[in-house]
Amino acid sequence: MIVKLLYSMNESRYELGLKHFKEIYGEIGTKVLENLNHISPDMSRYIIEFAFGEIYNRKGLDLRAREIVRISSLLTMGNAKPQLKSHIHGALNVGCSREEILEIMIQISLYSGFPAALNGLEVMKNVFDERDKKGTYP
Amino acid sequence: MIVKLLYSMNESRYELGLKHFKEIYGEIGTKVLENLNHISPDMSRYIIEFAFGEIYNRKGLDLRAREIVRISSLLTMGNAKPQLKSHIHGALNVGCSREEILEIMIQISLYSGFPAALNGLEVMKNVFDERDKKGTYP
Amino acid sequence: MIVKLLYSMNESRYELGLKHFKEIYGEIGTKVLENLNHISPDMSRYIIEFAFGEIYNRKGLDLRAREIVRISSLLTMGNAKPQLKSHIHGALNVGCSREEILEIMIQISLYSGFPAALNGLEVMKNVFDERDKKGTYP
Amino acid sequence: MIVKLLYSMNESRYELGLKHFKEIYGEIGTKVLENLNHISPDMSRYIIEFAFGEIYNRKGLDLRAREIVRISSLLTMGNAKPQLKSHIHGALNVGCSREEILEIMIQISLYSGFPAALNGLEVMKNVFDERDKKGTYP
Amino acid sequence: MIVKLLYSMNESRYELGLKHFKEIYGEIGTKVLENLNHISPDMSRYIIEFAFGEIYNRKGLDLRAREIVRISSLLTMGNAKPQLKSHIHGALNVGCSREEILEIMIQISLYSGFPAALNGLEVMKNVFDERDKKGTYP
Amino acid sequence: MIVKLLYSMNESRYELGLKHFKEIYGEIGTKVLENLNHISPDMSRYIIEFAFGEIYNRKGLDLRAREIVRISSLLTMGNAKPQLKSHIHGALNVGCSREEILEIMIQISLYSGFPAALNGLEVMKNVFDERDKKGTYP
Repeated sequence: MIVKLLYSMNESRYELGLKHFKEIYGEIGTKVLENLNHISPDMSRYIIEFAFGEIYNRKGLDLRAREIVRISSLLTMGNAKPQLKSHIHGALNVGCSREEILEIMIQISLYSGFPAALNGLEVMKNVFDERDKKGTYP
Repeated sequence: MIVKLLYSMNESRYELGLKHFKEIYGEIGTKVLENLNHISPDMSRYIIEFAFGEIYNRKGLDLRAREIVRISSLLTMGNAKPQLKSHIHGALNVGCSREEILEIMIQISLYSGFPAALNGLEVMKNVFDERDKKGTYP
Repeated sequence: MIVKLLYSMNESRYELGLKHFKEIYGEIGTKVLENLNHISPDMSRYIIEFAFGEIYNRKGLDLRAREIVRISSLLTMGNAKPQLKSHIHGALNVGCSREEILEIMIQISLYSGFPAALNGLEVMKNVFDERDKKGTYP
Repeated sequence: MIVKLLYSMNESRYELGLKHFKEIYGEIGTKVLENLNHISPDMSRYIIEFAFGEIYNRKGLDLRAREIVRISSLLTMGNAKPQLKSHIHGALNVGCSREEILEIMIQISLYSGFPAALNGLEVMKNVFDERDKKGTYP
Repeated sequence: MIVKLLYSMNESRYELGLKHFKEIYGEIGTKVLENLNHISPDMSRYIIEFAFGEIYNRKGLDLRAREIVRISSLLTMGNAKPQLKSHIHGALNVGCSREEILEIMIQISLYSGFPAALNGLEVMKNVFDERDKKGTYP
Repeated sequence: MIVKLLYSMNESRYELGLKHFKEIYGEIGTKVLENLNHISPDMSRYIIEFAFGEIYNRKGLDLRAREIVRISSLLTMGNAKPQLKSHIHGALNVGCSREEILEIMIQISLYSGFPAALNGLEVMKNVFDERDKKGTYP
């Protein structure tokens, strides 16, 4: 009985996380998630349940500000291009403009250096081109 | 003659940068700058002229969003505590709340890992304590 | 009603996490946790609930191997000394020998370079001295 | 005479290193080594002589634990995919199970963050697929 | 009037930077710059004006030593391959020999670890092959 | 018999390394080495034998250029202050001027960002002050 309840509780946190995930990443995210599910269902569950159901569900910063946090962190790492790509899409989907994305990269050059900024601009360019081809706005 | 003009042009960019610098960092910043001036006047000039006169002077992101970019980048590096401290002060001075600073660190734990977030919380705690002692708000 | 149940479910995951946490870090860990509770109760809850109640609770690697993973990762980062210190204590508490801790650092020099290894040896030395003073074994 | 002896001593350390190298990496390793020999025979010699003849030849940790150290360090760096790939093969060749490799990556997400773990899972997936195609076990 | 003067002053710093840029990177650099101009004209201007017009224009280290600084820093980052490639070309164009480039990578293995050095050797090999194909010397 | 010969061969490589080590680091280095000997005699031996007896013994770059490589790499890491301090001393001892050390840090700001450069300047300042107090030149 307790086991069943625990399961359904996790279910609901999972469902909440999945709702957030779909809001932010849309169609592209679903493919990434399916892909991950084949590699490790547990990792996929942690990401939906903890990352999206818990951390992304917090109220302290608006969605836009949170995507700015993520893009800045990923630019600084400089070795997480697939995640940077997803979060540039995500930021545009929750209200950031293309100009703001570009501005983050120019600002970051002072902190993480010019190579990090330039490699980020390359990823950004690819995301913009992809959206232009599909007619996605912004 | 050209040399004199070039100088006065740089002067004015320097002055603009210095105005921004003082707005964001106040009294603490001035000490840091004087200290740096003794070590390398050129480096001090580049920071005021290029970083503050040029990059900080851009319009693409509001001051608050730019401090979020900086704090996120410095948290991810994890090895720039004096700069992280300055920018937490800077963020509070330009309109971020204490709750928002805390929230950046909680969000960053997913990207840069828990050690980066925990070490950031320690620096944040020290900044808050310092401001409480001086009665600085927020 | 659902709220109360959700709470008690989280409680139980929290309790499971806390049990693991105390097993691995003992008295030192409790102080760290209390300290963190004052800074951010949410962050403290995520660490107990997600890190210890979920990730540390997994079965795929024995406790000893997991501490080897953590120490290797923290050595490579090179900027997380408080966490490295805690995990060297943790590794010794769950069955690693002092020789094995030393060996991890020697091995890591090939991958993360000699400075990372040497700075790790310094932290290790401090942990060993601290345990010698308190008569903790190993 | 001394020169000749020194040479033959180095020879024997080289041969010992080469034996270890072949044990761990097999056929794939030999190609990597030949490739490196064309770029820099000295670097190739240091890797066999120092890394494999000396560091890999130590007794303080068993082969399995040492591959756990390497994979954890390489995951944390996040920018050394060819080496991560080689060491996942190496770990499987010296007794780690596929489940253990996956588990390292799940554990590392807490320390190095989710992007590092997810990019590691991608490399792991490719190694497993490659081994499945060739019928290599595990 | 002041605006026009400021513009022409920037022009001249831009022109000085562009002269340095072309000296070091030649034909390849021009393509990179055009590409960047399409993504962000401001970023392109900062690189020419600040990086090349100001920092590269300094006298404290000769051109050769400065390229050694850059290659060492980029090797240590390990995630900036396009920039590493450009600066290996740049170093060869300003007087470094191929042997010296190789030597930097061997030396760096002690500090940044063997994976960073090995991945750098791969980039170096590609640059040398490219120059051989075009008959560029050294 | 073979064992004894191997030992004496290693001895001679050790002695060559020790000679280099003393040339570069002098009195300060000897203390660091003694300290390390207490923590791990093997690690100490690898550093003298491999790092100094082999890598530092190479001819491809002059001593000055090699210290430039090391300082650039350590500045970029940003988390190896004791090693950075030692190598600034080392660079000054083998012929770099104080101006050149400063210049490396100014150049590095473009690549590793301003925080890395500023934290390096702080370490540099301490080294210069220490040498001034002892009357060491330069």
